[in-house]
Amino acid sequence: MKDGTGRAAQTPKVDKVDIAEYMQRQKKLVDSFLDDYLPSPKLYPEVIHEAMRYSVFAGGKRIRPILALATGEALGGDLRALIALAGALELIHTYSLIHDDLPALDDDDLRRGQPTAHKRFGEATAILAGDALLTLAFQLLAEIPVSENQHELKIKVIHKVARAIGTSCGMVGGQVVDLTTQGKPFTREQLNYIHSSKTGALIQASVQSAALLSNADQAARSALATFGASIGLAFQIVDDILDIEGTPEQLGKSSGKDRVEKKATYPAMYGLETSREIAKNLVEDAVHEVAFLGARGEVLRELARFISIRRF
Amino acid sequence: MKDGTGRAAQTPKVDKVDIAEYMQRQKKLVDSFLDDYLPSPKLYPEVIHEAMRYSVFAGGKRIRPILALATGEALGGDLRALIALAGALELIHTYSLIHDDLPALDDDDLRRGQPTAHKRFGEATAILAGDALLTLAFQLLAEIPVSENQHELKIKVIHKVARAIGTSCGMVGGQVVDLTTQGKPFTREQLNYIHSSKTGALIQASVQSAALLSNADQAARSALATFGASIGLAFQIVDDILDIEGTPEQLGKSSGKDRVEKKATYPAMYGLETSREIAKNLVEDAVHEVAFLGARGEVLRELARFISIRRF
Repeated sequence: MKDGTGRAAQTPKVDKVDIAEYMQRQKKLVDSFLDDYLPSPKLYPEVIHEAMRYSVFAGGKRIRPILALATGEALGGDLRALIALAGALELIHTYSLIHDDLPALDDDDLRRGQPTAHKRFGEATAILAGDALLTLAFQLLAEIPVSENQHELKIKVIHKVARAIGTSCGMVGGQVVDLTTQGKPFTREQLNYIHSSKTGALIQASVQSAALLSNADQAARSALATFGASIGLAFQIVDDILDIEGTPEQLGKSSGKDRVEKKATYPAMYGLETSREIAKNLVEDAVHEVAFLGARGEVLRELARFISIRRF
Repeated sequence: MKDGTGRAAQTPKVDKVDIAEYMQRQKKLVDSFLDDYLPSPKLYPEVIHEAMRYSVFAGGKRIRPILALATGEALGGDLRALIALAGALELIHTYSLIHDDLPALDDDDLRRGQPTAHKRFGEATAILAGDALLTLAFQLLAEIPVSENQHELKIKVIHKVARAIGTSCGMVGGQVVDLTTQGKPFTREQLNYIHSSKTGALIQASVQSAALLSNADQAARSALATFGASIGLAFQIVDDILDIEGTPEQLGKSSGKDRVEKKATYPAMYGLETSREIAKNLVEDAVHEVAFLGARGEVLRELARFISIRRF
């Protein structure tokens, strides 16, 4: 086949993706967007805006935004819409970390090597900063720039994200069971519920929302939903493993805490070796699930693989 | 003017609205909707759903939902959409009460004569129940039943509500300044900011969102925005007055707490008599503002008057 210039058109050569470089680049994009979007620390009342920024810019890897961007890019979605979605997902993730770290919940003093929000700003401001980030996330979702016929799609995105972070198979539900099983015997069903809900649901929703916004068809959305669920669960299993194997320096917080607190984790249920195996299989499933994307899916596949081998 | 039957058509006779009876009736409607909508207390994980219901059904007056319903009814809006909006507003109000009552914030043990959520369920569950109610409110807003051409309108409603409860002139911002001025000298600007943001913004948004959903024109929306701002501020001033004049039985919590904690209140700034006068004037302004609604606005006017004379 020849194009209009008489030159032979070629299938674009797919270079092996440098996933670390890709993640670094997308993280910069997300950080720059969030820096523009978050209220200025000089805006009254200053302390809450300082606290919100402090936690958002505490060094997160931006996994959820990067997954949303990569999904949307693979489907040819609009970058302006995707970056707003990506930003909202990170605001939600940050809210969940601030509240999880509170003395009444996980009682963590350090997060990514820095004092947690309540250690730095006090408990009241930390609670309110979490509330404010959750609220701002929905405001931002409502501001996603879409074309005239996409308003209903945007409502579906808002709905999907809200469900993913709610109580029934969503983030808050997972956090509740995580807390109530602590120090007690737990079942496989509870363990799966915690991991799929607390961590998996928002990761899955990141992929699914980007697919929706990018007008993916039903078959693609369904495959991507499975992809998202698999990597979401794998991500939390790897987190469990790193809590045992990582050094405090690598983790930016104390290690071995899950075991001390008798948390429901995969290593506690299955041992380290089997947990590693389960995570690996989940990632392999995920990689197969997006085979339909061909070369365009390479970044998503590399992101999935990264999740199972990450060391931080 | 005669109608087809030959009888003289009359301007419909406007009976004086029995506002107490009206509020009771609308409260039942809202409560019944919320009872249907909230996850069953038998749904896993049960404790969070119990906690959410406990606080939602702790005896609130449903002021915000009733204002939304009355506004929508005055404008001929669709009741199915309005009741969903009303329910979401009450979920948000309940979330704010749960978090405000926490030990790190106002540290209240009683609310409406009952133990507050953290006294009943512990702090962790109370924090998460607040988070869950806020999240569920946005899910419910996304589910408001609207016609095909109203999706953009619904997004505007979501956006307006999010802004009203955020940090910049919204509920969380007001709460922050309320906390940071406590026990310190405060200015009139700070006092106004606290009252308009912490309480006024969501009350105003209740009226404005209902007006949006009911397809009010620009002039009506603008008048109703002023109406909402006036009664929102009046409501909080009356709250300040009741904290001094009400008995613990009337209030369902300890009275005189604002003075003990040196909170920024209208009576502290202007004295009781002038505060009463300011509230009365705000309500009169509000009543005039909705004169354009004619007989259809009678309920809104009575609701405004009720706010300045309420004893609980």
